[in-house]
Amino acid sequence: MDSLTAATSSQHQALLRRYGASGGPAVGPWNEVMASLLDHRSVRGYKPDPVPPGTLESLVAAAQSAATSSNMQWTSVIAVSDPAKKKVLAEIAGNQKHIEQCPLYLCWVADMTRNALISAEQKVEFETMPWLETFLVACIDVAMAAQNAVVAAESLGLGTVYIGAMRNDPERVARLLGLPKQSFVVFGLCVGYAAEQAAGEVKPRLPQSIVVHHDTYDGRNTETERKTYDGEMAKFAARHEMQASTWTQRVLNRLGPIKSMNSRERMRAALAALGFEIR
Amino acid sequence: MDSLTAATSSQHQALLRRYGASGGPAVGPWNEVMASLLDHRSVRGYKPDPVPPGTLESLVAAAQSAATSSNMQWTSVIAVSDPAKKKVLAEIAGNQKHIEQCPLYLCWVADMTRNALISAEQKVEFETMPWLETFLVACIDVAMAAQNAVVAAESLGLGTVYIGAMRNDPERVARLLGLPKQSFVVFGLCVGYAAEQAAGEVKPRLPQSIVVHHDTYDGRNTETERKTYDGEMAKFAARHEMQASTWTQRVLNRLGPIKSMNSRERMRAALAALGFEIR
Repeated sequence: MDSLTAATSSQHQALLRRYGASGGPAVGPWNEVMASLLDHRSVRGYKPDPVPPGTLESLVAAAQSAATSSNMQWTSVIAVSDPAKKKVLAEIAGNQKHIEQCPLYLCWVADMTRNALISAEQKVEFETMPWLETFLVACIDVAMAAQNAVVAAESLGLGTVYIGAMRNDPERVARLLGLPKQSFVVFGLCVGYAAEQAAGEVKPRLPQSIVVHHDTYDGRNTETERKTYDGEMAKFAARHEMQASTWTQRVLNRLGPIKSMNSRERMRAALAALGFEIR
Repeated sequence: MDSLTAATSSQHQALLRRYGASGGPAVGPWNEVMASLLDHRSVRGYKPDPVPPGTLESLVAAAQSAATSSNMQWTSVIAVSDPAKKKVLAEIAGNQKHIEQCPLYLCWVADMTRNALISAEQKVEFETMPWLETFLVACIDVAMAAQNAVVAAESLGLGTVYIGAMRNDPERVARLLGLPKQSFVVFGLCVGYAAEQAAGEVKPRLPQSIVVHHDTYDGRNTETERKTYDGEMAKFAARHEMQASTWTQRVLNRLGPIKSMNSRERMRAALAALGFEIR
């Protein structure tokens, strides 16, 4: 096999893992970065080995290099290594043991305090602060920054998993980490070397045909294509002994009963207590 | 210079561009992906050249490979190529001409309709839908997906810029693109080859010392380090003939007067009209 054929074959395999037999695109632009992005999987078990020196700083440099709306830079990062704090955070997250296991646990903060300080110092009212828009843009900034850190970590051979369950109790997380008013942990991120058998398999996604639209949203094939995807996810679930066998079933379980939110329906009140108005 | 020294020097230069002389970390883990991430800059002028065939599909494959909370996959993408629609979108965005110029304009949609369809079809009430948590997690999903697409695009030699100004008028954007209820464009993204002189310069960011914290948030150096950064940004602004000379001044201009929001303080009402309750 010549090197061009080998590259095409590796791309084909990567697309097959991500979309199954029918949902993915044909061969298009491809390189090592694409291969690394397509190969993402969440890692929920870690070796005790520490990450190499300077890893935190490299990941943060990648994170800060992401676009940030109007250069407002709403992101802060708390690197948690204190085992007692990690234990509490794991409890808040419904006993996700990988929070305690991983050598680097990062809490990603939507941090309006740095900017709000300027309001106090310069005695200028920041009229834009109490709105949903400002809250949302801060969270989007944080998500883009964290995603860059994930891409960097995976390129360095490290595994990661996001921990949305920090939002189960934003006030307790904020107290534990000594956050000032107008900042909150949007999510956590485990970073480390995947334990044996914890690296998992690339999870298939919805077919591109119902995710991508041209000029106008076209939902006509949503239901039939979802059934194709249900078939892919049923095969994936069977390989992994997961309970919900199709995507449809997983959506029903996750979005149906309010108890699946693990108290996050109270987040609005918690954020108000932390100084976010979100009008 | 041997290759190790060359790599170290290129890393040093990249960190210097991103943080100026004093704010960045020392040398840490580094590779080609890190170099590409650190080199990000927003591109606001494009050549008319089309992107290579398959680019859209490759970027979407990268986007769909990002983590998605509970595999709910809230992201849809509308690729807009109709010049009439691009013209309207550019107007909504305060006449950002690069929206019309770029060969590939992507609208990133927080799309709850695919999931909500299952509720209707299976006659199961989705109790989790009306909450801020669910809205937020959809927007975070979209941001992570789009950031992967940006990383992929830049690795392929393409330039990008996010267009938050799609939120200036979410209802008009939704009508223009025929979005169903419970979906909205979180932001746009221009993709294409940077025009001469439009590639710009890497923008310096806040020093890591006030962005990264260990176990507990420590804001003691925020004000002094912000002044260091103000100095870096003043030099950057002078090189680019920008108006606001320091970061402090830019924050004052952007967050002080409500008019700088370009109507986005009305977003809550617009989203309610689009079917988002956000309790």
